[in-house]
Amino acid sequence: MVFDYAARIARVTAAMGRSGVDTLLLSVGSDMPWLLGYEAMDLERVTMAVVRPDSRPTLVVPRLEAPRVDDRGEIFDVVAWDELEDPIGIIVDLVGAGSALAVGDRTWSMFTLALQARLGGRTWESAGPIMAEMRMVKEAEELDRLRAVGASADRVAERLAGYLFGGKTERRVAADIAAMLVEEGHDSAWDVIVASGPNGASPHHEPGDRVIQIGDPVVCDFGGTMDGYISDTTRNFVVGEPAAEYVAMFAVLREAQEAGVRAATVGTPCQDVDRTTRKVIQDAGYGEYFVHRTGHGIGLEVHESPYIVEGNELPLAAGMVFSVEPGIYVPGQFGMRIEDIVIATDAGPERCNNSPHEFVSVR
Amino acid sequence: MVFDYAARIARVTAAMGRSGVDTLLLSVGSDMPWLLGYEAMDLERVTMAVVRPDSRPTLVVPRLEAPRVDDRGEIFDVVAWDELEDPIGIIVDLVGAGSALAVGDRTWSMFTLALQARLGGRTWESAGPIMAEMRMVKEAEELDRLRAVGASADRVAERLAGYLFGGKTERRVAADIAAMLVEEGHDSAWDVIVASGPNGASPHHEPGDRVIQIGDPVVCDFGGTMDGYISDTTRNFVVGEPAAEYVAMFAVLREAQEAGVRAATVGTPCQDVDRTTRKVIQDAGYGEYFVHRTGHGIGLEVHESPYIVEGNELPLAAGMVFSVEPGIYVPGQFGMRIEDIVIATDAGPERCNNSPHEFVSVR
Repeated sequence: MVFDYAARIARVTAAMGRSGVDTLLLSVGSDMPWLLGYEAMDLERVTMAVVRPDSRPTLVVPRLEAPRVDDRGEIFDVVAWDELEDPIGIIVDLVGAGSALAVGDRTWSMFTLALQARLGGRTWESAGPIMAEMRMVKEAEELDRLRAVGASADRVAERLAGYLFGGKTERRVAADIAAMLVEEGHDSAWDVIVASGPNGASPHHEPGDRVIQIGDPVVCDFGGTMDGYISDTTRNFVVGEPAAEYVAMFAVLREAQEAGVRAATVGTPCQDVDRTTRKVIQDAGYGEYFVHRTGHGIGLEVHESPYIVEGNELPLAAGMVFSVEPGIYVPGQFGMRIEDIVIATDAGPERCNNSPHEFVSVR
Repeated sequence: MVFDYAARIARVTAAMGRSGVDTLLLSVGSDMPWLLGYEAMDLERVTMAVVRPDSRPTLVVPRLEAPRVDDRGEIFDVVAWDELEDPIGIIVDLVGAGSALAVGDRTWSMFTLALQARLGGRTWESAGPIMAEMRMVKEAEELDRLRAVGASADRVAERLAGYLFGGKTERRVAADIAAMLVEEGHDSAWDVIVASGPNGASPHHEPGDRVIQIGDPVVCDFGGTMDGYISDTTRNFVVGEPAAEYVAMFAVLREAQEAGVRAATVGTPCQDVDRTTRKVIQDAGYGEYFVHRTGHGIGLEVHESPYIVEGNELPLAAGMVFSVEPGIYVPGQFGMRIEDIVIATDAGPERCNNSPHEFVSVR
C-alpha cells in the first residue's frame, strides 16, 4: 500500500483521546478514503466506518458493495449488511456505550438523525476539526500527487492560449476544457467554470449558452482528479484586446496574487495571507469587488482546511496545501481571478501552478 | 418556467401540516431543485432553504453564489450571506419558534449538528418521507424527460452491439460508454459500471484494469443526466460464445425481468414486484445468487422512492417511475443483470428502455 493507513488510524485515535471523542463515525466524502483507503458510494444504502480507540475500525458496508472493498483485514474489519437487514442497528451496536460521538461532515443527515433517534443521552459533534487536523499537513506522496495534477492542469492552461474562444458558448468551452484535462492525464474533471463578459462577475458562474464575443474577458477556473488528488487553477483570457479599465485592474490583481503567494510562508497565520492580497486590492480602491476569501486547502477534496480567510489564526505549517486566488468582480461588466495551488515549505511557498499568470489575448 | 414551483411549494406545506412538521430545511441533493428550481453547490459554504407554511420559503445562499440563483422573487426570498457572516445564525433566526424540524436527507451532518447545537428543545426528523411522497409521482413533463433520457441510453446500448470489447480494459470501455452517452444527447454520465468475467459477480463493481477476454460475459450498467432527469439501464454482452451454464441462467433472468415488468401495474404493492422477479429466480434454484432488491425509483436522483423491495407495501400509482433489475451473481465466475426503467400507467407498465434484452454476442 502506498499510504500507511495503520499509522493514520493511530494518529486519529490519539487525536480522539485529546478531544474527548470516544467514537468517530465516518461515511461519504474524503475522510474515509484518507483513513481506510475505501470511499463510500454516495447512495441511500449507508456505508459507515466506526472508529474507536479500543479496537480496530469496523467498516459497515452494503453486502452488494463488499466486493469493492480491498482486503485490508489487518487494518479494519468489514461488516456487510444484507439488503433486508437494518444497518443503523448494526452501527448502534458497534457504538456500544460510547457517549461522545463525532460524525463526518458530509455524512447524510438522514443517517445521523436515524442514529440519534436510537442513541439517546450521547453528545454529538462534527468530526471536522479532528479530521482537518489530520489531513491538513500532507505526506510526501500526497505532495507529489498534488504537484503532478497541478502540472497536468497547467498543460491545459497553456493549450488554452491557442484555443479559439470567440463564437463558442461557455458550455462548449467548459466541455472542451474538461476533455483537455483528461487528455493531459486527469482521471476526471470537476464542473469547470467558464464565465465570459459580464458573467465573469459571478465567481461561481455556471457555464451557459452565452456566446463569447470579441472583447470579452473570460475567466476559466478548472481542475479535476488524478490519482485521487485534485487540481484547481484559474486563468484569464480576453478575446482580442481588453478595455483599458480591465488592464489596469488586472495589474492590481496580479500584484495582489503575487503578494499573497509570497506571504504564504511557514508560521504565517492563514488570515495574514488573506489580509495581504486584500490590502493590495483595497489600496487600489477595488476592495468592494473582492467578495470572497483568498483561498482554501485542497487535497482529496477541492475545498478543505486550511481556509485562507480572515479570522483563521492557524499558522501555516510545512506541507499545508491551499489556493491563493484573489478576484475582482465588477457587477454587470466583467470579473477576473488568478488562482494557484501553493505548498507551504520550509524553503518558502512552492507553486503547483506555473502556467503564465498574465491574461492571454486569444481569438 | 416549465415546472410550477408555486404549486409544488403549496403541496409541500400542506404535507408538512399533515405530518406535524413546522419547518423544513433542505440543502444539497435533489429536494431543493425539485421544490425551488435551484440546486445547492455541494461545498462547505452552506446553502439551505427554510420552508414554513406561514411564509414564502427563504433560500440562504453564499453571496458569491447568489448570481447563480435565477430570479424567482415571486416564489421564494433569497438571503445572501457574506463571506465573514455566520450562515447558521441566519438559519436559526429563520427557523424562529419552529419546534418540529425536518431536514433534507443529504444535508451535510456538519450543518445539522451546528443547527442542533443552537436550537435546543426541538424535535428533528428526516424530511425524506415528505419529499418522497411529493416527488414519487412524476408530472407529465418529468415523464417525457425520463422517456427521452431512456431512449438516449438505448441508442448507446444498440451501438454497443457493434463495439469491440475484447482486449480492452473495463476502465476504457466505461469511458467509451460515458462518451457515447454524451454523443447521444446526455449532458453527463454517472460512473458507468463495466464488470467483466468474475467481476460481474460484484453488482456495484468499479471498472478497473482487467482486460476483457474471449468468452467473458460483461455487465454494462450505465446512464446519466439529460435536462435534469436520469437514465439507468443494464445490458449484457458476451465476447464470443458464452458457457452453457450462462445461457441457462440468462434465460431464467430474462423471464424474471419480464415477469417483474408485467407485474408493475397500478395498485400493486412494490414488494409484490420484488417477489415476482425473485420467485422466478428462486424456483430455478438460483435464489441465493440474487443478492439485492429488484429496483429503485428514479427521477432527479438515480436512486429515490419508490424502492421495489420486500417490506415496501406502498401500492404503485400512475406516474411512479422505477427500475426493474433482477440479477444473478455467481461468486468467482460471472454475473448478469437486466435493467429497465418502467413507468406505472393506467394502461399498464411502460418501459423507458427498449433496446434488445437478450445478451449480445460481441467481438
